[in-house]
Amino acid sequence: MTDKSEGVRLSDEQRLDWLRLIRSDNVGPRTFRALNNHYGGARAALSAVPDLARRGGATGPARPSREDAAREFKAAKTLGVSFVALGEPDYPRRLQMIDDAPPLLAVRGNAAALNLPAVAVVGARNASAAGVRFAERLARDLGEAGFAVVSGLARGIDAAAHRASLASGTIAVLAGGHDRLYPPEHAELAGAILAQGALVSEMPFGREPRARDFPRRNRLISGICAGVVVVEAARRSGSLITARFALEQGREVFAVPGSPLDPRAEGSNDLIKQGATLVTEAADVLAVLRPIIGTPIELRAEEPEAPPPPAELGAAERARIVELLGPTPVPIDDLMRLSGSSPAAVRVVLLELELAGRLERHGGALVSLL
Amino acid sequence: MTDKSEGVRLSDEQRLDWLRLIRSDNVGPRTFRALNNHYGGARAALSAVPDLARRGGATGPARPSREDAAREFKAAKTLGVSFVALGEPDYPRRLQMIDDAPPLLAVRGNAAALNLPAVAVVGARNASAAGVRFAERLARDLGEAGFAVVSGLARGIDAAAHRASLASGTIAVLAGGHDRLYPPEHAELAGAILAQGALVSEMPFGREPRARDFPRRNRLISGICAGVVVVEAARRSGSLITARFALEQGREVFAVPGSPLDPRAEGSNDLIKQGATLVTEAADVLAVLRPIIGTPIELRAEEPEAPPPPAELGAAERARIVELLGPTPVPIDDLMRLSGSSPAAVRVVLLELELAGRLERHGGALVSLL
Repeated sequence: MTDKSEGVRLSDEQRLDWLRLIRSDNVGPRTFRALNNHYGGARAALSAVPDLARRGGATGPARPSREDAAREFKAAKTLGVSFVALGEPDYPRRLQMIDDAPPLLAVRGNAAALNLPAVAVVGARNASAAGVRFAERLARDLGEAGFAVVSGLARGIDAAAHRASLASGTIAVLAGGHDRLYPPEHAELAGAILAQGALVSEMPFGREPRARDFPRRNRLISGICAGVVVVEAARRSGSLITARFALEQGREVFAVPGSPLDPRAEGSNDLIKQGATLVTEAADVLAVLRPIIGTPIELRAEEPEAPPPPAELGAAERARIVELLGPTPVPIDDLMRLSGSSPAAVRVVLLELELAGRLERHGGALVSLL
Repeated sequence: MTDKSEGVRLSDEQRLDWLRLIRSDNVGPRTFRALNNHYGGARAALSAVPDLARRGGATGPARPSREDAAREFKAAKTLGVSFVALGEPDYPRRLQMIDDAPPLLAVRGNAAALNLPAVAVVGARNASAAGVRFAERLARDLGEAGFAVVSGLARGIDAAAHRASLASGTIAVLAGGHDRLYPPEHAELAGAILAQGALVSEMPFGREPRARDFPRRNRLISGICAGVVVVEAARRSGSLITARFALEQGREVFAVPGSPLDPRAEGSNDLIKQGATLVTEAADVLAVLRPIIGTPIELRAEEPEAPPPPAELGAAERARIVELLGPTPVPIDDLMRLSGSSPAAVRVVLLELELAGRLERHGGALVSLL
């Protein structure tokens, strides 16, 4: 990955390779990165995937064909969606910083909106009339101040935030594929967003969003933004998940207060107790974010690329590494130290397990068995 | 002034002297303290007052007679009110710490309530139903946790806080004399408070509370307490004055959040922005105050008593000191240094001006001409 000013564009063939790799079974953004780094490119990684998966214990094939990927590209083109790759100039700059940034982002609408400084406005689906009114006022003022307002296209606060910032450019991050908008009744709103703003998704075409896709999507909402404003949120609500991602990603967290007797304010009041900035007007957000958006973004350091794995990795060595793993996340460094194996050997075994769906990667270079 | 454990009681005659001195024209708590310290007691100070006032430029007499004071004592006794002097065991411990603690506090009801750890619950007179409900819940829970709930007997939040903590002991600080309850319709509430709690006032019997008496009273509400909770407060409201006093006095400030669209939450939301602790339940208050009430209270250092003033203080020296004063508050130390006069001489001139109503004392040993 390179600084935006030096961003390079993938060739069409490279983009197809990237799409095939990220759409392979058990390949998420972190595995994509590990494979890409280990094999020095998506093409080489794709060739290695079947063997790796088999050695990790997987049975069936796990890799879309070149034709499958081409078909998704074609479907995307029909809907006016383009795939922006991590490191390309149009890729949202801040999103590059997060650990599990999608290698490819499917973008529909005005891609220039992704280059605006961005702030998320999220909240309850069952919002109160006051909450909706406040979200509208806030989103309008943040838009007029030059920010792209980012949200999740949900009912309630999300929709209010998008609607009030249509003119200045608003970004909706989808939990499913571009051809599976959720909720369906927001199709018209989604259409209105396209003029100045954009819809983005990391999910394949045809993917109906499932419950677990929403929290996963929320990391992109916070990841694109310099800060997240939670307008109304009950305890244990999706908006709080977005706020937690924001904290993990080093983003600013803002919350709008409410009466302690209103359950829809419990989550946002809790956030303020925990240190979130209290917001009663856009100026409260701008005072914190304006100094931040002026400063250069520090991109995450990359692991150095490793040489190809030693061919002689034997069954005993593999078993020793697997034995060190369990359901409790452990640092990869510990595996290297305790197994006595080379870093390259450990990485290969982890990739094998991962592609077989037996390994989970956590933040901070921790891994656990599933 | 001594530590509570060593508190001594005034004799009846001393208490009369204290009452006469604090009821003299232009003698507030700070002047009382200066006179008492300078002359080594209220009796000697009382003898000096007429001459001092005359030299300061005052015309009329300014000192109630012994009979006047005895009459107030009698009126107080009839209503079951007793005068507790600064330094006596029943005087609220924390109140002793403030710069302008009243030398005598007129107490009606259960004086033992003044020895409980105390927390103020204050807010809007035109409170919302939700605000009243929350104030009741909070005051009840704080009372059950062993705190005396202190407030101002006003309509709205104050009355709700008192009502909900009648059983555990609640303290109402009056802005006027004990025989001039305000608002009059809270006479029954005031009566109910007396069983477990107390009404307190620094004001003379017969004093109808005027507008300027309320902010002055508010410093006692915060002064008695370890912390102040503001439940609903518009901008520029009396509750914010109490919060400001609390900050000046080093008390904890708490505020209950509300919707940014509710004008009654503007003041409390502002307080949270400025660093007040957000409160949604009594536990938020207790978590901060419990560690504080366990720690010993550090009493303010006293100025050492000065010798009697030099008799030979001449007109030229007096004029030189007065000339250094103006409407801008200046440190008393500067007056001593710039005038070349002795500290005792400067103090006497200041007392003269003060008793003539021409001097204002501010916090931090600053003074200005009126």
